Amino acid sequence: MNKGILIVISGPSGAGKGTICKEVLKRDPSLCLSVSATTRKPRSGEKEGVNYYFLDKAEFEEMIKNDQFLEWAEVYGNYYGTPKSYVEEKLKEGREVILEIDIQGAMKAREKFPDGVFIFIVPPSMDELEKRIKGRATETDEEIKLRFSKAFSELKYITKYDYIVVNDAVSEAAQKVLAIITAEKCKVERNLDLYLRLENV
Amino acid sequence: MNKGILIVISGPSGAGKGTICKEVLKRDPSLCLSVSATTRKPRSGEKEGVNYYFLDKAEFEEMIKNDQFLEWAEVYGNYYGTPKSYVEEKLKEGREVILEIDIQGAMKAREKFPDGVFIFIVPPSMDELEKRIKGRATETDEEIKLRFSKAFSELKYITKYDYIVVNDAVSEAAQKVLAIITAEKCKVERNLDLYLRLENV
Repeated sequence: MNKGILIVISGPSGAGKGTICKEVLKRDPSLCLSVSATTRKPRSGEKEGVNYYFLDKAEFEEMIKNDQFLEWAEVYGNYYGTPKSYVEEKLKEGREVILEIDIQGAMKAREKFPDGVFIFIVPPSMDELEKRIKGRATETDEEIKLRFSKAFSELKYITKYDYIVVNDAVSEAAQKVLAIITAEKCKVERNLDLYLRLENV
Repeated sequence: MNKGILIVISGPSGAGKGTICKEVLKRDPSLCLSVSATTRKPRSGEKEGVNYYFLDKAEFEEMIKNDQFLEWAEVYGNYYGTPKSYVEEKLKEGREVILEIDIQGAMKAREKFPDGVFIFIVPPSMDELEKRIKGRATETDEEIKLRFSKAFSELKYITKYDYIVVNDAVSEAAQKVLAIITAEKCKVERNLDLYLRLENV
């Protein structure tokens, strides 16, 4: 049996990673979602174990010490990280795992999972990105400015990714992500066992 | 505007390349089909300019002399070739071009179009392949034997391709080919203009 594929959905904040992931998982329930851990406060509506595992700083640092993260980072004064065990277990079972993650995290995940699939979600324009960040309204003006200038400078990481998906309409963007997953499963280098099976009939 | 992508659908005879191509084109009529030229006799139902351009030997050799083929080959005593002009024109217009072609031809096309997408269609099993070749019933026993042993030896070319699609059910195989096309259009290296556009807003 083939190993599962790690699908990393990444991009600047405000690009719509979360909305796309939700739609992708709805359309293909066989996909697994890796839930991150964080020390930031829950936004309204966010649920423990669904959106994040909300940990306090001491708990998070204990996990770092025990090498229990696939990647972790400090962003805007909070820790974010991906617990290793879930991802590794699902991939071994042959399941695809979706990881929604910021750019710093994706770059670290790439080192550990070079055969993962890295998708950069971009807004249709930077104007639109600014609107979306402002529309979220859970942050102060200062935070919004920080996020926007960071998003802009992060664009240069596009070349480190495998695919770009423009998030113009969520439905189309989700369909593209699903197509990428289907295509990746057909890649020759992921199917050499199939070749051997045909040869030995 | 991005250049179109050359999509090469290839694999051993009897794998079902033709049926899959027909289904793919039906589902996405924006795709262009490259029609090959051949000196072999039309099979029942095949139409000039739709399935092939049926040429006589002298006409074909004249086109070879004038370098008008993207690739050509002699197979089972007949010439097969892909006229260059149509493919180049459509790619320039930003259209995707589907090229259904045998393995020899695909290997030559790869030299000229290294950024093309090469898909190897395989039967679910070699037993099934033998059945399909026999079922076609347009060939003598000797020809069938030749085709099958060739198909078997051609399996080793799988590693020269980008994707493998198992032709178990035509509908699923076609859906996979369409997903591959969608995914390839999202590849970072095909979208660097998009990055520049975002940077310059």
